[in-house]
Amino acid sequence: MSIFICGAGGLAREVFAVLESAGDTVTGFCVEPGYTTGILRGLPVRDHFARDEPDPCFVIAIGDGRTRARLAAQLADARWTTALHQAAVLGPNVLLGDGVMVLGPCSATTDVAIGSHALINPGCTIAHDCTIGAFVSLGPAVSLAGGVIIEEGASLGIGAKVAPGCRIGAWAVVGAGAVVIRDVAAGDTVVGVPARSHRPDRS
Amino acid sequence: MSIFICGAGGLAREVFAVLESAGDTVTGFCVEPGYTTGILRGLPVRDHFARDEPDPCFVIAIGDGRTRARLAAQLADARWTTALHQAAVLGPNVLLGDGVMVLGPCSATTDVAIGSHALINPGCTIAHDCTIGAFVSLGPAVSLAGGVIIEEGASLGIGAKVAPGCRIGAWAVVGAGAVVIRDVAAGDTVVGVPARSHRPDRS
Amino acid sequence: MSIFICGAGGLAREVFAVLESAGDTVTGFCVEPGYTTGILRGLPVRDHFARDEPDPCFVIAIGDGRTRARLAAQLADARWTTALHQAAVLGPNVLLGDGVMVLGPCSATTDVAIGSHALINPGCTIAHDCTIGAFVSLGPAVSLAGGVIIEEGASLGIGAKVAPGCRIGAWAVVGAGAVVIRDVAAGDTVVGVPARSHRPDRS
Repeated sequence: MSIFICGAGGLAREVFAVLESAGDTVTGFCVEPGYTTGILRGLPVRDHFARDEPDPCFVIAIGDGRTRARLAAQLADARWTTALHQAAVLGPNVLLGDGVMVLGPCSATTDVAIGSHALINPGCTIAHDCTIGAFVSLGPAVSLAGGVIIEEGASLGIGAKVAPGCRIGAWAVVGAGAVVIRDVAAGDTVVGVPARSHRPDRS
Repeated sequence: MSIFICGAGGLAREVFAVLESAGDTVTGFCVEPGYTTGILRGLPVRDHFARDEPDPCFVIAIGDGRTRARLAAQLADARWTTALHQAAVLGPNVLLGDGVMVLGPCSATTDVAIGSHALINPGCTIAHDCTIGAFVSLGPAVSLAGGVIIEEGASLGIGAKVAPGCRIGAWAVVGAGAVVIRDVAAGDTVVGVPARSHRPDRS
Repeated sequence: MSIFICGAGGLAREVFAVLESAGDTVTGFCVEPGYTTGILRGLPVRDHFARDEPDPCFVIAIGDGRTRARLAAQLADARWTTALHQAAVLGPNVLLGDGVMVLGPCSATTDVAIGSHALINPGCTIAHDCTIGAFVSLGPAVSLAGGVIIEEGASLGIGAKVAPGCRIGAWAVVGAGAVVIRDVAAGDTVVGVPARSHRPDRS
């Protein structure tokens, strides 16, 4: 098996560190055509997705969830690896989808589902019975109370908090440090304490 | 010794996971008469407090502090177990009362007292010289600076922060994400950044 | 080598705990002339900086960054020890300056520089490519997103968050729970969500 990291920025270096510390050997990095290639961490950065390699395996280390979704569709038949930091503390019935990234110390207590290609940054805490959709991004130090549902592709900024039982709709954006105490509609952007919808064109 | 967990909800499952991962064998769950019984994690959920068991030992895994206080009074002569997650980092002179629950990675640096049946959720950090009363509830990712005093039964929501030396009065409620920078009176509810008293009937 | 902790308050006790748990033997505490001496943790508290000891080694366990800077200048030719808690998770290319203190579970993912005599409290998360200057103080549960720059001596209160790429100027002060989403000027004080400049004489 050859492990390739899609991406070559800061997140890719973080994922590389997680895989290496878990004892995995990374073969190289991949970027889309047009992006800069070269050498990163002593490994090649290629501008194609290495489909010619024997038994390639991927993780999409790109911060933008929509780009992760697009690449996952493009590589639909690929094998995926997860990048699970050894300091993550996962309780019983915590299920990780394909290509999930958990980049440092985190907690998920029990009965939690984390969808494919979700990104969980260091310092996150996830309480019982949370459901996190595919392509979701949790910034550093995000905390979810019990029974929270984060739908596909939603992105929570650094330090955001979600109160018990709240639902964050698909592809919603929660600002840095926002505290969500009621449901957030799909596609909405919310900021502040408590989090309120943010319409840049009106404020 | 037979360990019984009082409660059968999400918190009870979290406490169960902590005890199991610490190598303790749980005998069953108990709920008050009228609540649903059955099987949870393969173990019986009883609607009485198993006083007939040989050498029973309890932990009250119920989120509401007043209910914990009532049950603790009801079971006044019971033996209690603590549920201390192995990823909790406790320094010197950190004292835990009867039935304390610490559900995940947490830090208490030095000279900290945590009262009986207090609930400390994952991601909390407690600095030097803090005193936490009985039946206090700290939500996930709550942080207390040095010399903070949390009196009996106070409840701090997810991600709340308390500045150095502040005192939170008995049975006060601190909202999710609130940042406490001055003392909070007993029984008060505070929210926001900085935290201010919240009177729902006026706003 | 004799290790001396400069300071004898709560932070000094926290640093003592970190050093002891790391297997280091502390010889004593030092305070400036005029401060209370005596015994702390069974060790002498001296009112001079033990320059007569064989091969002395210091760490400045004082919360105020300006005082740390003054003492570091005064002891300019001293040897320094770091106090790095064993629960800190440091990735590749995370560099620690002289006398850095990391007091509990923390994360620094990759390509991070932490300047001399910086103080990192428990629960902090530091993402890729951050630069933290000398004498900086990060309160408990502070989180820095990728590419953040914290200049010399800046102080971030408990639970402060900094969005990607922001720069916090030298000796700036960020309030408890503040969320920084744009650059902060040197010497400024910012508070709130989002963080705004705080002029006590006008508000």
